[in-house]
Amino acid sequence: MKKLWGGAHREPLSPSAEHYGNSLESDLVFWLEDVHGSIAHAMMLGETGIITKKESALLVKGLKQIVAEGPGKLPTDAEDIHTAVEMRLKKIVGEVAGKLHTARSRNDQVATDTRFYLDGQLRLLEGFVKLLQKKFVAQAEAHFNTLMPGSTHQQHAQPITLGFHLLAHFWALQRHGWRIARLREMQSYSPLGSAALAGTSFPIDRRRTSSLLGFTAPIPNALDATSDRSHVLDALHICAQVMTDLSRLANELVLWSTPEFGWVSLPDSHTTGSSIMPQKRNPDFAELMRGRAGRAVGNYVSVATMMKGLVLGYNRDTQEDKPPLFDSLDLAVASVLLMWEMIAGAKFNTERMAAATRGDFSTATDLADFLAEKGVPFRTAHEQVGKIVRACIDRKIGLEDLTPELLKKIAPKVPKEALKVLDPRASVNSRESEGGTGPKAVAKQLRQAKALLKAEGFKKPY
Amino acid sequence: MKKLWGGAHREPLSPSAEHYGNSLESDLVFWLEDVHGSIAHAMMLGETGIITKKESALLVKGLKQIVAEGPGKLPTDAEDIHTAVEMRLKKIVGEVAGKLHTARSRNDQVATDTRFYLDGQLRLLEGFVKLLQKKFVAQAEAHFNTLMPGSTHQQHAQPITLGFHLLAHFWALQRHGWRIARLREMQSYSPLGSAALAGTSFPIDRRRTSSLLGFTAPIPNALDATSDRSHVLDALHICAQVMTDLSRLANELVLWSTPEFGWVSLPDSHTTGSSIMPQKRNPDFAELMRGRAGRAVGNYVSVATMMKGLVLGYNRDTQEDKPPLFDSLDLAVASVLLMWEMIAGAKFNTERMAAATRGDFSTATDLADFLAEKGVPFRTAHEQVGKIVRACIDRKIGLEDLTPELLKKIAPKVPKEALKVLDPRASVNSRESEGGTGPKAVAKQLRQAKALLKAEGFKKPY
Amino acid sequence: MKKLWGGAHREPLSPSAEHYGNSLESDLVFWLEDVHGSIAHAMMLGETGIITKKESALLVKGLKQIVAEGPGKLPTDAEDIHTAVEMRLKKIVGEVAGKLHTARSRNDQVATDTRFYLDGQLRLLEGFVKLLQKKFVAQAEAHFNTLMPGSTHQQHAQPITLGFHLLAHFWALQRHGWRIARLREMQSYSPLGSAALAGTSFPIDRRRTSSLLGFTAPIPNALDATSDRSHVLDALHICAQVMTDLSRLANELVLWSTPEFGWVSLPDSHTTGSSIMPQKRNPDFAELMRGRAGRAVGNYVSVATMMKGLVLGYNRDTQEDKPPLFDSLDLAVASVLLMWEMIAGAKFNTERMAAATRGDFSTATDLADFLAEKGVPFRTAHEQVGKIVRACIDRKIGLEDLTPELLKKIAPKVPKEALKVLDPRASVNSRESEGGTGPKAVAKQLRQAKALLKAEGFKKPY
Amino acid sequence: MKKLWGGAHREPLSPSAEHYGNSLESDLVFWLEDVHGSIAHAMMLGETGIITKKESALLVKGLKQIVAEGPGKLPTDAEDIHTAVEMRLKKIVGEVAGKLHTARSRNDQVATDTRFYLDGQLRLLEGFVKLLQKKFVAQAEAHFNTLMPGSTHQQHAQPITLGFHLLAHFWALQRHGWRIARLREMQSYSPLGSAALAGTSFPIDRRRTSSLLGFTAPIPNALDATSDRSHVLDALHICAQVMTDLSRLANELVLWSTPEFGWVSLPDSHTTGSSIMPQKRNPDFAELMRGRAGRAVGNYVSVATMMKGLVLGYNRDTQEDKPPLFDSLDLAVASVLLMWEMIAGAKFNTERMAAATRGDFSTATDLADFLAEKGVPFRTAHEQVGKIVRACIDRKIGLEDLTPELLKKIAPKVPKEALKVLDPRASVNSRESEGGTGPKAVAKQLRQAKALLKAEGFKKPY
Repeated sequence: MKKLWGGAHREPLSPSAEHYGNSLESDLVFWLEDVHGSIAHAMMLGETGIITKKESALLVKGLKQIVAEGPGKLPTDAEDIHTAVEMRLKKIVGEVAGKLHTARSRNDQVATDTRFYLDGQLRLLEGFVKLLQKKFVAQAEAHFNTLMPGSTHQQHAQPITLGFHLLAHFWALQRHGWRIARLREMQSYSPLGSAALAGTSFPIDRRRTSSLLGFTAPIPNALDATSDRSHVLDALHICAQVMTDLSRLANELVLWSTPEFGWVSLPDSHTTGSSIMPQKRNPDFAELMRGRAGRAVGNYVSVATMMKGLVLGYNRDTQEDKPPLFDSLDLAVASVLLMWEMIAGAKFNTERMAAATRGDFSTATDLADFLAEKGVPFRTAHEQVGKIVRACIDRKIGLEDLTPELLKKIAPKVPKEALKVLDPRASVNSRESEGGTGPKAVAKQLRQAKALLKAEGFKKPY
Repeated sequence: MKKLWGGAHREPLSPSAEHYGNSLESDLVFWLEDVHGSIAHAMMLGETGIITKKESALLVKGLKQIVAEGPGKLPTDAEDIHTAVEMRLKKIVGEVAGKLHTARSRNDQVATDTRFYLDGQLRLLEGFVKLLQKKFVAQAEAHFNTLMPGSTHQQHAQPITLGFHLLAHFWALQRHGWRIARLREMQSYSPLGSAALAGTSFPIDRRRTSSLLGFTAPIPNALDATSDRSHVLDALHICAQVMTDLSRLANELVLWSTPEFGWVSLPDSHTTGSSIMPQKRNPDFAELMRGRAGRAVGNYVSVATMMKGLVLGYNRDTQEDKPPLFDSLDLAVASVLLMWEMIAGAKFNTERMAAATRGDFSTATDLADFLAEKGVPFRTAHEQVGKIVRACIDRKIGLEDLTPELLKKIAPKVPKEALKVLDPRASVNSRESEGGTGPKAVAKQLRQAKALLKAEGFKKPY
Repeated sequence: MKKLWGGAHREPLSPSAEHYGNSLESDLVFWLEDVHGSIAHAMMLGETGIITKKESALLVKGLKQIVAEGPGKLPTDAEDIHTAVEMRLKKIVGEVAGKLHTARSRNDQVATDTRFYLDGQLRLLEGFVKLLQKKFVAQAEAHFNTLMPGSTHQQHAQPITLGFHLLAHFWALQRHGWRIARLREMQSYSPLGSAALAGTSFPIDRRRTSSLLGFTAPIPNALDATSDRSHVLDALHICAQVMTDLSRLANELVLWSTPEFGWVSLPDSHTTGSSIMPQKRNPDFAELMRGRAGRAVGNYVSVATMMKGLVLGYNRDTQEDKPPLFDSLDLAVASVLLMWEMIAGAKFNTERMAAATRGDFSTATDLADFLAEKGVPFRTAHEQVGKIVRACIDRKIGLEDLTPELLKKIAPKVPKEALKVLDPRASVNSRESEGGTGPKAVAKQLRQAKALLKAEGFKKPY
Repeated sequence: MKKLWGGAHREPLSPSAEHYGNSLESDLVFWLEDVHGSIAHAMMLGETGIITKKESALLVKGLKQIVAEGPGKLPTDAEDIHTAVEMRLKKIVGEVAGKLHTARSRNDQVATDTRFYLDGQLRLLEGFVKLLQKKFVAQAEAHFNTLMPGSTHQQHAQPITLGFHLLAHFWALQRHGWRIARLREMQSYSPLGSAALAGTSFPIDRRRTSSLLGFTAPIPNALDATSDRSHVLDALHICAQVMTDLSRLANELVLWSTPEFGWVSLPDSHTTGSSIMPQKRNPDFAELMRGRAGRAVGNYVSVATMMKGLVLGYNRDTQEDKPPLFDSLDLAVASVLLMWEMIAGAKFNTERMAAATRGDFSTATDLADFLAEKGVPFRTAHEQVGKIVRACIDRKIGLEDLTPELLKKIAPKVPKEALKVLDPRASVNSRESEGGTGPKAVAKQLRQAKALLKAEGFKKPY
């Protein structure tokens, strides 16, 4: 295998060591970032006179040819992507290729590639998050009036609307977008020119390469720039957050798809059959997404544990940051996209949802609130309602089946006007406090959501 | 045990269930936040006419008495802190206490307490981070000229200064401060008034309670406000980041304290002895800090795993977010503070550090760079230097021991002027690229660090 | 704070360092194990003549007094439990207390305490696992004939019996019991006498202390004995396994408690109400158990991360193994016990479960198998059944509603005898392959389960 | 993409769903196990008359051809490995291929493949663990007399021998071997014939397929057999344990390779150079191994988190158990092998190690023990030694430099015979307690280690 070093070594690497250390398969993911990083470096070397303009031009031309060729022409027997690119470049431009590595080390190079790649993937994820948000707003508008049971402890608690429920997921996405945008702000600084750990004696221009690559500025300390991997952990955290929230949503889709709930029907294009049970329409992709949250958390742990106790200066341990990073980013991007398709294709069984809001005592709180508004201390109201509910259960009726007579018998102190608050729709309509499920409150919330959607990027968390 | 519910329940809880579910011991941590949240709520209830001004005043007075009394008077047989406070309040103000829970649920209450508490702890941590940064700047200035070996792969690579090394830790802290500040920006929104999950029919004023508690604004969706715990995971992530970086620094202190290194001496006040080996001065606290990074990562996993697949609406599972959150915040705060003491008290053995930069071939890169500057392609220069290093090793001499004659014999093409770059101090002085270890570059870095220190808070990552 | 060391230290510990390092609060958990370990050590010291018989007797008497007094008399200002016990002993027996630490170090002492304590907790857990298994067998027998839908992908797949389903949980517990028993076998070896790391020059008898404490034998290498914490990680793994399986079961209880399923009713003693919705009977303890699986996984990560990269010889980092260990063991023990109560008190709604097996196409596989038995290639049979199912869905009927005429029309090649396999009970009764849900197969499984229950301990995995 | 289902589906899968769900790339790892499982199944189907002998023979012949062909001829556009094999089989034997899936489901098939594969990998790992143990015994014998400092808190504590130190790693490996052997014992039970979840009505013979595949017996409950993944978590735990212990050893190699320690020299075949610093001999592979412990812990978390809360019955989430399982097993196997090479090639700098045992006060304990043997209470002895050590430090001498005169002056009560215990070799020779570093104790330990090595497998933990 080809390496960029070896001058002082008398024996070749053991094959198992070579295999153990090889990162090319994983690194290939950012081959393009590596080449672009080299183009910026080569340009700067020429501009500062560290190499001649002609050498610089030759290097840049060769590197651009590599971009045009694609990764297919890179040698596969190189130790890592940096070596592969340099080997290919030598084939194209000859010995001058050796000058590319002037005033640079693989330590700052890999740090640059990672940040450059990370920024691109975060931008992608940010865009997809916004796309999925739009779908939630569209479905929330379509289901502005759809009644459904709102649950706590997975028990019916109070009637809400599906639109209100779906918007809750919108806000989770808004936070993700905000997190991504902030991380982009923070991590887009350039390590290039930090060299191995301490900078270089060549008169390089780090601001120039930083700017060519779209970074905000150079990272102020070369040792820090080559030792830090905390932005990788930040990205893994964001991916774990995205996947955790998606796992919650995915689990709702799985549950709502059960025959017992029957609240949603995912399209054929997003369900699978069974090799032995032909009637099955299984929410496999929602299940996979639910399960893959585990992978995102695992990837986080891999890197956090790897970093524990690592002294400053490049250590080879950190090679292990990339497979989890690539995996989590791919996973998050693919999952947001797939969820977008699933939410787009989901058919909600609105009749069944609405029917589920009846006979479930979920307007008990409304009754308690009604009494409280009449001046009954909340705890007392609570106890009275408890008594009424128990009486209904004993009679196997719902709260909405209460007649004035029955109410009088069960709870003589409760006035019959109380009965009017027991209808699910009335209950929903009454919850107009800010952020509530009432129609005016939801309409206001929708306006706020749309304003955020219209704004570029994610400047505010809410 | 006293509970706020139970109307429809005919049997008491099993003692093991009661024990299993009790959260008072943990919740007590934010008793004060809980009471302040209730004060804001009681004020708002009076202002909006939901309860009378007099009732409101009574409640507020009672709650303020609880603040004055401290947590010692809260009952210890309550299910949770909310119940404990309400029980105490009832003792103080009587039945009117029951009105406090109007238009509120424990679901929005606990979410409010957590965010309120979290903001306070984050502010504390932010302040301590800045304190520790200052200590690093002070030590970096004191060791502006102290030579030491810079390592990669824990092998000497290039000479650097201790000041340069210490500043690398400054920047890690700067990122932590920035992360904390951003999380504060994002999580300081108020869930209060979301009630159980869907808002309330009472004409509450969520902007008022939000503002009374110092939040930016109410969270727009009540279901989201009571279901979301992603800010807890964000905080656990930040604590894991802080602890991971501290574990790296702590490991440096442990290593540098070994007799083999002998680079640092921690004060008696921060080392321990052994029950059987009286001569030992063990860096126990640095060891503990290194190990406790594991706890911070574990706490993250606890909450991430707990959240996986949880459907929206309050679920009791989320009670489990608090013990890890409290633990990680306490740990991060205590660790930053303790590290501040250790860095303040650390005595660096500057002679030994400087001596270690000689005879270690760590100026080989300088030689390679020198050749490259003379127009030798980098890879060729690299090979020549490799040959020279090997020859020195064979002769058991250092690079700085090379005479012009010897150099000529080993590498006839390398000019004798090359020898002048082999001195460690010259090497350091030459690395003046931005972010490098050279004195001008470090002076510039120090100015940048001090400017950030002077600025309030953490507005910029660099 | 009192410490067992300090001879060479001129300054006291900083208060924050002292607080950071204190482990007494956590260690107190195994105070009794610590004292028993000391009793064994003191006896051995006397028997081998390292101290006099009289001294030995005095120490043992004093230590037994500490056992009798309980932990309440131990000083609370000691650094750790070892120090606290020795301080108390000195109060009781005077200066001779100083002899107890002869030929011993806190390094082997804490390792001994941990293994001794761990064995006791594992024995407890093992016993509770068996208890819970018994409850599953009892409920499985009670529900030997109860029909219910068996699901894959949380979609009805084939009818099964509740007895069959509950026995699946029996086997998970059998594996846990087996794991616990194996870990006990492996970890019950004695570190005592390893001293700080290298053994001692005193003529101690490690086999004697090992045997007095009920260990199998001394651990062969003193450095290993004081450095190893892998048994702690093993125990944390077992707790994570137990909690993960309980979280699966707990989630079934939560789901089956929803109004949509309505398959199980947990007793009042194991559900809670809501402060605002008096009708709620929330499965809080099942929810908590589901969520606490996260804590068990987190504790595992804490210790694994802490151990990463730790060189041999006692390091203070390892103090961090105890809080997670104590927490996970307590959690697992409490959870198994609580689940025992919940399974004991669970009322299954057998009518609703049985009704759910109709109209759900869950005997489609039976039809496919029927055709396959008639010689139709399985894939062809599969396709035919798929066509029939789709036709039924289009007609809004269940498979059991098919008439011979309709069948002929839809699938002319399928003989009418096929109809008899479409009844859920017939379907269950037909699955008599080993391990199947058929009554004979389940009866056989029950016999196997009971035989394992009757056997002492957990000698076999199945 | 080709699937084994689809009868009731009217639309094709969305491309992104298809990509998201595809597992062929990962599954290919156990293609051979899948084919062997099918051979056993096909044989049994013929023997029991479920299909004809001729059909069975045809299927087996076709499957054996697939074995002979290797995986290269399997279609790459299949959904998973099971589908790929069946597609290829159909090409070879025609329509009869459809009969192979009689009385089987992918649910029991994948569970069988995983356990079959897992057993093979565990056997491999077990063998390599023994190999590495042998290398430790060989090096321990070679360094039976090599003095080195034994450390606690990474501070010199007492002199030991390198042989003694290396044997500590032997015992860690012994535990790993024991764990692997126990897991093999437990997990080698057959799920085959469990079908989708409830067994089958075909008169299959599960004992026959179990025995053909080398399993101990069929798993007693079909639902459990298809739902359980706890053996995967067990395997991931063992890999995490192996990697954690290797990370400790790897970190010792990294540390001992630093110029400050200089205790070990890894061969050129297991170190790398630097692209910019030609003199570097970096312990990259030890660093990578240290870091990859994180990956093993991460993989554990991935699966544990994925399993949390999963109800019984096959769920697609569990597809996610395989990539981490394959990865961790490969990693553990490769790491043990690579460590075997590194330990084989490591050259210990015995002179430097021995020199490090002088002047480090590491025989202070010997002095304390000497006094204790003379009847001085241990705590008193401890204090006296502390005073002596401090006096030596003040005089900048080592303990071994003490003259009788000086001793008398510093500590008049300490007899001059005490001086003889202060020599490192004498110190080592005196520690002859069982498991100690003394030569007789180590010789005994070596005999015990060799006896275990000679025994087949891992029947005992020690």
